[in-house]
Amino acid sequence: MSREELFKNIAVQNDRKIVLVVLDGLGGLPVAGLSELETAKTPNLDSLAARSELGLSHPVGIGITPGSGPAHLSLFGYDPLRYDIGRGILEALGIGVEVGAGEVTCRGNFATISDGLVSDRRAGRISSERNSEIIVFLKDKIKEIDGVKISLYSGEEHRFVLVLQGQGLDDRIADVDPGIVGKPVPDAAAEFESGHKTARVVNEFVVRARDLLASFHPVNGVLLRGFAKSPDIPSMAELFKLRPAAIATYPMYRGLARLVGMTVLPTGKTMAAEIETLRQHYGDFDFFFLHVKKTDSWGEDGNFDAKVKVIEEFDTLLPEITALNPDVLVVTGDHSTPAQLAGHSWHPNPVLLHSPFVRPKPEASAGFGESACAVGTLGFFQAVDLMPLMLANALKLKKYGA
Amino acid sequence: MSREELFKNIAVQNDRKIVLVVLDGLGGLPVAGLSELETAKTPNLDSLAARSELGLSHPVGIGITPGSGPAHLSLFGYDPLRYDIGRGILEALGIGVEVGAGEVTCRGNFATISDGLVSDRRAGRISSERNSEIIVFLKDKIKEIDGVKISLYSGEEHRFVLVLQGQGLDDRIADVDPGIVGKPVPDAAAEFESGHKTARVVNEFVVRARDLLASFHPVNGVLLRGFAKSPDIPSMAELFKLRPAAIATYPMYRGLARLVGMTVLPTGKTMAAEIETLRQHYGDFDFFFLHVKKTDSWGEDGNFDAKVKVIEEFDTLLPEITALNPDVLVVTGDHSTPAQLAGHSWHPNPVLLHSPFVRPKPEASAGFGESACAVGTLGFFQAVDLMPLMLANALKLKKYGA
Repeated sequence: MSREELFKNIAVQNDRKIVLVVLDGLGGLPVAGLSELETAKTPNLDSLAARSELGLSHPVGIGITPGSGPAHLSLFGYDPLRYDIGRGILEALGIGVEVGAGEVTCRGNFATISDGLVSDRRAGRISSERNSEIIVFLKDKIKEIDGVKISLYSGEEHRFVLVLQGQGLDDRIADVDPGIVGKPVPDAAAEFESGHKTARVVNEFVVRARDLLASFHPVNGVLLRGFAKSPDIPSMAELFKLRPAAIATYPMYRGLARLVGMTVLPTGKTMAAEIETLRQHYGDFDFFFLHVKKTDSWGEDGNFDAKVKVIEEFDTLLPEITALNPDVLVVTGDHSTPAQLAGHSWHPNPVLLHSPFVRPKPEASAGFGESACAVGTLGFFQAVDLMPLMLANALKLKKYGA
Repeated sequence: MSREELFKNIAVQNDRKIVLVVLDGLGGLPVAGLSELETAKTPNLDSLAARSELGLSHPVGIGITPGSGPAHLSLFGYDPLRYDIGRGILEALGIGVEVGAGEVTCRGNFATISDGLVSDRRAGRISSERNSEIIVFLKDKIKEIDGVKISLYSGEEHRFVLVLQGQGLDDRIADVDPGIVGKPVPDAAAEFESGHKTARVVNEFVVRARDLLASFHPVNGVLLRGFAKSPDIPSMAELFKLRPAAIATYPMYRGLARLVGMTVLPTGKTMAAEIETLRQHYGDFDFFFLHVKKTDSWGEDGNFDAKVKVIEEFDTLLPEITALNPDVLVVTGDHSTPAQLAGHSWHPNPVLLHSPFVRPKPEASAGFGESACAVGTLGFFQAVDLMPLMLANALKLKKYGA
């Protein structure tokens, strides 16, 4: 029986509520013996930890450093090696663009082409404002090609996103981008017969864009890569019988949540605003994904102390979440982002799981930290198994077999 | 995405160096409360352990006692259940014989045959010297059959290795060995059409050998079994983008390393000589497999104290390795060989991993031993995942997904 079949068979709906708090990039590495999480003063988390199960989860596999896409899929209960999210999709999600079923998207660059060869793949990194002006202009001029609707969205600097909507589109199209300067822009080439129409539309777009951009120096052409359709993912409702909602401030995480069928709730920019959103909608859903970005951002910046501060800020707000008395409350990361590495890492995620049905350590006093998690009662596990664990603790999984 | 595809996609080359020390059969069982490793006085390992991650690895799977072949494949990052090494190949490796691509090898016995029936499968366990004389004689008389080159190599006592080199050979040939006395020697039989030529050559060899051995009483025939080709294994360079070297005193381990594309360095018979080899070639490679055999040998002999002594000897030499300042240093076993069992066992391997990016236990003072590893920050894992972990700690793996 496949994993998907198993959960479709045993998942049941009930009124119990699960709150999954993801402090992005939570896991860290020790400086002076203690990690960011262990350095942070977190009386509320520590007290909760003593009444919870702790463990460490591998987002994708041992030694594998994940991007945000696979790391979140895993937390949502989807095997990240099975469900591959194309680069174009992630780029679209990152600027808040939804890509519907059957639609094809890709990442675009505004570029400079001289004598038929790419001379600057980023057209001198034009400003985002200039980018917006160009996109407004192009959108007005190219609305449809061959019955396929063309949508364009500005990104940062030289980047944009193209979305094709129409019948019979195929995303198995080679990059329209030589990847390096000094080469011509290749035509869009379909990898399969079924992609000929898409390739034709893409080529027509590239040619028309080039004509239209003649007076936008240094921009005079486009490069396109990472053609992708939305992955064919069963929804969390279908798989786990959940009514899930997402609370996140950054577009990519809102987009990832939407991919698996979560309702994305409007919210503010701060952690306090996110928790207020949770409170307001607490009656409407039975699964909440609450995403905190800044732990990762500071980790990426290599700023140990600032990451510690974000964790401490979350700790002061935690009582507002526990006051809702969720049946299952999990606090974890999607991956580690140790300030020492100033980037995502392979180290497993600290996991805290609270429910009425946990086995805490009797003598637990070490609080919530990587070391305590390494000897926690959840042990080491794959992050994709966190979802069944949350469902089980919410009594949302029937017995398997008799 | 398969494991192989994943690593081909994310592995990158850099100058960081990994040293993997395998103390063969390291893991043990307690006598008077402490295992061999825990009994050994190992101040250097203990001090390193306090700054390292510890864990326990399963060579093949929980409860599975591995042979040296699968146990090492696993340490080299290859799924030992996927890559099967034929007995003939291991026998050949064990006496230092290389088997090239497309070649077929098998294990041979010199035997006694009476009235057409096998009367002694080992011809009275003739001496290795006598074996050598017979092999010299046979090699001179049988050099080629039907365009296939015949190579013969002496083993211990009655054992030898046969290698066939030529076009269109097939290793799916039934054993030319009844397995018990009192039965006739079966003809070589191909399991598939494609094996007819190989079977014909093998049969011709068996008949000619029998004629030639008439005057070598008690030897007057040969038995052949375990026909095998070299497994089709992607090299460590191909899979992990490593430039790997092996330092090992025993032929089998040198052969196993060669199977996965390691450069096998000439070295001496002692641990000190092996470490000297490591030092001399330290600039030439980025991955070193250093194999110490005697821990296993004494374990196999059931000699607890002698195994302890070998571990202590390694400990006194450890500073010569750490002086090289490898970016990643791992000390582990390929499998456990508890003196109590006088053989390989299923108990997981103690693992010590040192790098700049580890999460040691803050309060660690238990040194390096099975009990400390059972509550270490690496947890329990499959030995095949040690390679990704080493690569990650050497910053040799890119992020998976965006």
